[in-house]
Amino acid sequence: MILDGRPIAQKLESNIAREALEFQKNYGIKASLHIIVIGNDDVANLYAETTLNKLKALNMDGGIHRFPESTSEKDVTDFIKKLSSKKEVHGIIVNAPVPKNFDLRAILSSIYSEKDVDGQNPYNLGMLMLGAEEHAPATPKSIVRILEEYKVQLSGKKVCIINRSPVVGKPLAMLLLNRDATVNICHTKTEDLPSLSRSSDIVVVAVGKPMFLKEHMVAENSVVIDVGINKYNGKIVGDADFENLVKKVSMITPVPGGVGSLQTVMIIEQTLKNAQKLMQR
Amino acid sequence: MILDGRPIAQKLESNIAREALEFQKNYGIKASLHIIVIGNDDVANLYAETTLNKLKALNMDGGIHRFPESTSEKDVTDFIKKLSSKKEVHGIIVNAPVPKNFDLRAILSSIYSEKDVDGQNPYNLGMLMLGAEEHAPATPKSIVRILEEYKVQLSGKKVCIINRSPVVGKPLAMLLLNRDATVNICHTKTEDLPSLSRSSDIVVVAVGKPMFLKEHMVAENSVVIDVGINKYNGKIVGDADFENLVKKVSMITPVPGGVGSLQTVMIIEQTLKNAQKLMQR
Repeated sequence: MILDGRPIAQKLESNIAREALEFQKNYGIKASLHIIVIGNDDVANLYAETTLNKLKALNMDGGIHRFPESTSEKDVTDFIKKLSSKKEVHGIIVNAPVPKNFDLRAILSSIYSEKDVDGQNPYNLGMLMLGAEEHAPATPKSIVRILEEYKVQLSGKKVCIINRSPVVGKPLAMLLLNRDATVNICHTKTEDLPSLSRSSDIVVVAVGKPMFLKEHMVAENSVVIDVGINKYNGKIVGDADFENLVKKVSMITPVPGGVGSLQTVMIIEQTLKNAQKLMQR
Repeated sequence: MILDGRPIAQKLESNIAREALEFQKNYGIKASLHIIVIGNDDVANLYAETTLNKLKALNMDGGIHRFPESTSEKDVTDFIKKLSSKKEVHGIIVNAPVPKNFDLRAILSSIYSEKDVDGQNPYNLGMLMLGAEEHAPATPKSIVRILEEYKVQLSGKKVCIINRSPVVGKPLAMLLLNRDATVNICHTKTEDLPSLSRSSDIVVVAVGKPMFLKEHMVAENSVVIDVGINKYNGKIVGDADFENLVKKVSMITPVPGGVGSLQTVMIIEQTLKNAQKLMQR
């Protein structure tokens, strides 16, 4: 079975469109997400445009704030702090990648925790470790949403996460522990990864290498979540050898159309939730 | 081999005593740790007294601040915030347990992150998820210190942590991932725990149950770290069936004399480090 993320995204979007319209009627303003882009990376720019268009289609609003590579990091963090303090701003994200002379972590940390809709601020990550999911990062949230929508049992199940970053692996571990899964965090230094992934009920792979997760690395009837997005022979593919795995496992996410189809809408949903909460104060 | 924590604690203490004396000479004040005790729990009180005596023996200073159970939570958090803002206070801890009508998490969060010497503030836990260990919690730090002192290889090794709390399991996972270990986080809902622990190179157990970790649950030549402290037949014991495990595994911590012998001194060491850093500003 293919775990298609697109119908989940569509359902979320139609809920958001309805609730955002109601928000606008109630408060006379639109819920708004602000996107920071530093330098002129094509992917960061394209993603910002796509997100803004989606926001507008869903009765929300937003802005793209572009900074040239020559800007100082302090100018960016000062701008973000000022933006964070504005009542009409309900969410802020910084599009990766940023130029090498910028510290992405420092920039992310300058977003006020209550407007940090991708959950990358240290305070929000710490709250996540304490069990609070209110500001969890979008990618792990997307993964859990897919698993839950397709009613994959998590309690007691063995999950092998092949990624240890604070964007995917570590926060995902926290979300899965909250759902009573047993979580094995693996990475480049893991010895004998194939036997660990093969003895797991669910494998989440996010390594940025096409065809990395092969047939011998997964069990029959297991569930595979592919977080990779790679260019390979002119196509966009994930980290899994999809064609062969789909015949062996019980469920697998496609790339594109899996986790990636949910990430932006999760950020937009979080922005709307923030807006509702901030206005109810 | 028995992983004795006491010689490590003694070495740390003699370093602290020397550096604390130097600190006092340089700045005309002693490095100081403040301990909050709420209600009249015997363990919390005894631990406060023991810690204060140890501080004094190591050329440091401190205070115990006792609140009756009838105090409001806000009075306690206001007091902690005021204490946090004082230049002559370098570290603050809250002794568990606190009475049931208090939210320990809210109280811990009121300690300023830079004076949170047991690393329980959400910001410090988030920084730990981001890889910064400067304010890691004392128990996981004690575990890693023992493993490192006894030169147990961590890189690539499989560690089974039987605990998923934000005090032990989750922050320990972060410290071990920083050291390239593969980390499996297990708990009460884990299915077939014995086979998971038995296939691990290192098992860390913190479940609060005497004799929980038995011979069939560990591999020969594995390393066992016992974080439990239980009363059992009039004695203090850990969570491992020590008598039988010690014959099978390659290394094991005793209880008492293992992890527990390092925790207080780790908090005191952190207080001194904080004091040095705060005075150098």
